[in-house]
Amino acid sequence: MKERMLTGDRVTGKLHLGHYAGSLKNRVALQDRYEAFLLLADVQALTTHFDRPELIRDHLREVALDYLAAGIDPEKSTVFVQSMVPEIAELTVFYSMFVTVNVLRHNPTIKSESRNGSLDEMYYGFLGYPVSQAADITFCKATVVPVGDDQLPHLEFARKIVRRFNELYQPVLVEPKALLSDMPRLVGTDGSAKMSKSLGNAIPLDSSKEELAHNIRRAVTDPARIRKNDPGHPDVCPIYTYHRVFRPEGADEIREGCERGTMGCAGCKERVTEALERLLEPMRERRAYYAARPKRVDEMLIAGTNRARAIARETMAEVREAMSLNYF
Amino acid sequence: MKERMLTGDRVTGKLHLGHYAGSLKNRVALQDRYEAFLLLADVQALTTHFDRPELIRDHLREVALDYLAAGIDPEKSTVFVQSMVPEIAELTVFYSMFVTVNVLRHNPTIKSESRNGSLDEMYYGFLGYPVSQAADITFCKATVVPVGDDQLPHLEFARKIVRRFNELYQPVLVEPKALLSDMPRLVGTDGSAKMSKSLGNAIPLDSSKEELAHNIRRAVTDPARIRKNDPGHPDVCPIYTYHRVFRPEGADEIREGCERGTMGCAGCKERVTEALERLLEPMRERRAYYAARPKRVDEMLIAGTNRARAIARETMAEVREAMSLNYF
Ligand code: SF4
Ligand code: SF4
Repeated sequence: MKERMLTGDRVTGKLHLGHYAGSLKNRVALQDRYEAFLLLADVQALTTHFDRPELIRDHLREVALDYLAAGIDPEKSTVFVQSMVPEIAELTVFYSMFVTVNVLRHNPTIKSESRNGSLDEMYYGFLGYPVSQAADITFCKATVVPVGDDQLPHLEFARKIVRRFNELYQPVLVEPKALLSDMPRLVGTDGSAKMSKSLGNAIPLDSSKEELAHNIRRAVTDPARIRKNDPGHPDVCPIYTYHRVFRPEGADEIREGCERGTMGCAGCKERVTEALERLLEPMRERRAYYAARPKRVDEMLIAGTNRARAIARETMAEVREAMSLNYF
Repeated sequence: MKERMLTGDRVTGKLHLGHYAGSLKNRVALQDRYEAFLLLADVQALTTHFDRPELIRDHLREVALDYLAAGIDPEKSTVFVQSMVPEIAELTVFYSMFVTVNVLRHNPTIKSESRNGSLDEMYYGFLGYPVSQAADITFCKATVVPVGDDQLPHLEFARKIVRRFNELYQPVLVEPKALLSDMPRLVGTDGSAKMSKSLGNAIPLDSSKEELAHNIRRAVTDPARIRKNDPGHPDVCPIYTYHRVFRPEGADEIREGCERGTMGCAGCKERVTEALERLLEPMRERRAYYAARPKRVDEMLIAGTNRARAIARETMAEVREAMSLNYF
């Protein structure tokens, strides 16, 4: 019996290399070891994009294509749509009853989004997003959630909800374990700490060969390298990070050449472009295959959602019984 | 075409004369004029009773019996269970996205429950109860909600949600109108402003003849009347209120007799007991009839819930389309 793993993405944009390096690559590897559930989080996307739902709609299938392109196998992974599993909303409402505003206020994401500690300007749904995240994880009794260090507090919150529910009612929910990954947070092509579409520093997974080359060419490098033979500082250069992440076998050589001033930035970028092209090329092919067969993508999403709902219904029946709300 | 009316009760206790005078009597009268939807609000009851769900469970059928006893006709009124309409939870989650904490903070109920203006100790679900109330009203596109003055701000909030939703997405929701009723808030037998089970000053609708007589006998009267012929002040006496509400035709005579000191409290109480007995006696009979036929009560609730769900599903389909979350 494989353990069940839950993970997913907010569907507010196409996925990029940052998603791949930070989680998607890991998921592709994990789908053999776990019964993988992949959530297309359109409801959670509403917390920040409620006034642009078309954007969510447009990206739902794009993200599904990104998954397939990256190697998510619909035979192994259950890809499903959050808004089509009403049990998640029901659990969110139930859990809301026993979580105080104070606890939510101390969630790192909520804290950083509140204005000088005041929650007044915050949307009620946004304030509750850790609660809805707990519902995402628990509706299918996931035992494993892959997380980076920064997401540990969110998982700890979900675990607390489970313990509280089980203690208040009956022990029907399952406490999820963190599957700590050391997947890196990828720097953007502009050197920002995080690659992000909205910062315009991302390399989309569906980049053409030309787009990829262009994005790498315009990427910043060590600003101290003015002449070709100036010694460089690879640790401040996003290109060096890309070497380390996507071409680790050659990273030492790059560091040496850069620090000694024997490796030019143009050549260094060419090498990383080649490595990335080797990664993206087969993705592009798989993407094209499925993009030409939209019905198969829809079928995958519908089948995945049906599978998720069947499990959600079972969990809800147990939850209702535990809460003695199973009247008939 | 009748307009649709929504109303209901939190199922945290059996109903009493205060509920009857304040709303139930009115609903019985209105069920001919409107397509009446009566919500058994078990989810809303969780906002205050999440740690005592058995209490909610136990009272669900009791409140249903109170409805039937008071004259709610299942052929005219749709009585349904809130937790069995998941679309209400889904709408609550959707509406949560565009309501700020600040707006909720100014809701009169939330305001009065917050500690010195701080929301920290409040449960997240309780803070959002105006949002879930808006979902209760809108899922069935109710056009009419009977309210007292004090509930007007809640209805105004639901109207705002409707306007905001319709403006953000598509105009699919219906703005409910207030059906202002001058139904009194009934004083308790101890003279407290509100009759309430938890204050121990309530006369349950299912009181036996003896319980009724006992409750009236022990009710406070004007404390200034020490001797039988002392002039009384009917306006400070709960018994006089009961005369006015349940026996209005004889209220003037009572006032006169009390103020002149010609009417003794014992006799005054006897008369109101008789009037209340005339009200409760047929209720007791109808209650006994249905209490002996629990299957019929369950059938009423199941049929009502199915009717509510069918409408909820239609509304949700429109809501999803309006929000462009109708993917397949
Ligand atoms: S040589 Fe490579 S690692 Fe060094 S600064 Fe240039 S692009 Fe960056
Ligand atoms: S006579 Fe009736 S109204 Fe007057 S104080 Fe007594 S009980 Fe109250």
